[in-house]
Amino acid sequence: MKISARNVFAGKIAAVRSGAVNAEVEIVTDGGDRIVAIVTEGSVKALGLAPGVRANAYVKAPWVTLLTGAADVRFSARNQLAGTVGGLQKGAVNTAVALRLAGGSVVHAVITNEAADELGLADGVAATALIKASHVIVGVPV
Amino acid sequence: MKISARNVFAGKIAAVRSGAVNAEVEIVTDGGDRIVAIVTEGSVKALGLAPGVRANAYVKAPWVTLLTGAADVRFSARNQLAGTVGGLQKGAVNTAVALRLAGGSVVHAVITNEAADELGLADGVAATALIKASHVIVGVPV
Amino acid sequence: MKISARNVFAGKIAAVRSGAVNAEVEIVTDGGDRIVAIVTEGSVKALGLAPGVRANAYVKAPWVTLLTGAADVRFSARNQLAGTVGGLQKGAVNTAVALRLAGGSVVHAVITNEAADELGLADGVAATALIKASHVIVGVPV
Repeated sequence: MKISARNVFAGKIAAVRSGAVNAEVEIVTDGGDRIVAIVTEGSVKALGLAPGVRANAYVKAPWVTLLTGAADVRFSARNQLAGTVGGLQKGAVNTAVALRLAGGSVVHAVITNEAADELGLADGVAATALIKASHVIVGVPV
Repeated sequence: MKISARNVFAGKIAAVRSGAVNAEVEIVTDGGDRIVAIVTEGSVKALGLAPGVRANAYVKAPWVTLLTGAADVRFSARNQLAGTVGGLQKGAVNTAVALRLAGGSVVHAVITNEAADELGLADGVAATALIKASHVIVGVPV
Repeated sequence: MKISARNVFAGKIAAVRSGAVNAEVEIVTDGGDRIVAIVTEGSVKALGLAPGVRANAYVKAPWVTLLTGAADVRFSARNQLAGTVGGLQKGAVNTAVALRLAGGSVVHAVITNEAADELGLADGVAATALIKASHVIVGVPV
């Protein structure tokens, strides 16, 4: 199977926290990076999501928000992934940014060129990727 | 009214499943395609969402993820719409893809050119559109 | 701190409505514009979100849907922000649109050129921005 989402985090489910309609699923990659997803309870049952199960987290690159500089704001986004810029591709309007995390995962973001300039993004710059848990799709290999 | 969202699925509500804050709303198009949306309980009451009510599901094209190939991963996304590619428009960075579903609905997706190449997208190729229920806006004609 | 999200609405929390997994947080800008966000209960506790607390709402421009014309459809999106177009930037595929709200906030949207044409967007045209509450990230200055 091939998927258009540029971010695929392969790992194992560490925790599932249930609600009435939605559940929070925490996936830990083999390198130790953590991604939290919100999925419906229907998906938890249908996919058999439970601690220890191997699962992938998928995120489209335009859903990733990037931060640089002093941590003077705390965010609601459940995924705040600190890393180092390791690749920039500038288009006419948007810039594609690759961010390497401590555990070895790479986060791909698409942001405007204006934002890329403001943030001072360049190879080696420290940055953080914000990803809302509700923007993460969970997949279970069969 | 005109809307910028490229995907508009017109149909009738088949089911509403309620939670504490959110509810799942299932819309069936006249052609039989099904779209599930997650909206707040406030919207269910304000819009009078109930089985039998005519409603539209709106989805921006960049929120659609595409898949091709063997179904070797099962996904949490509530909307997994199988169809056939019927139109590709390649830009400098992104490709717009039209996917025709069995019921006649057309799903518009915007993905990167790199992804379009990897997936081998071309007219007539079978593909599946993944859409998270939380990315669907529901509208009721008045 | 610098952030890639083009929409930053600075204000004060007016209300927090709690659920089992998620909560709805309403932020009112100093100019009186209102933005509703859905965040996890974990974030409500971690960030100390409560009425009166200063907070920012962040939204990426591609997550904003625009409407023009007669209000003949009612929408589930919790944020329906009426304003006037005050700036358009056309690219090869997408158009960036600035919408000025009554309270002085500016909403930045990225939509396709095709949609911009269909909606008849031009400076001074009345339009409405739809933003799903689940697409809003909340930040608290520290």
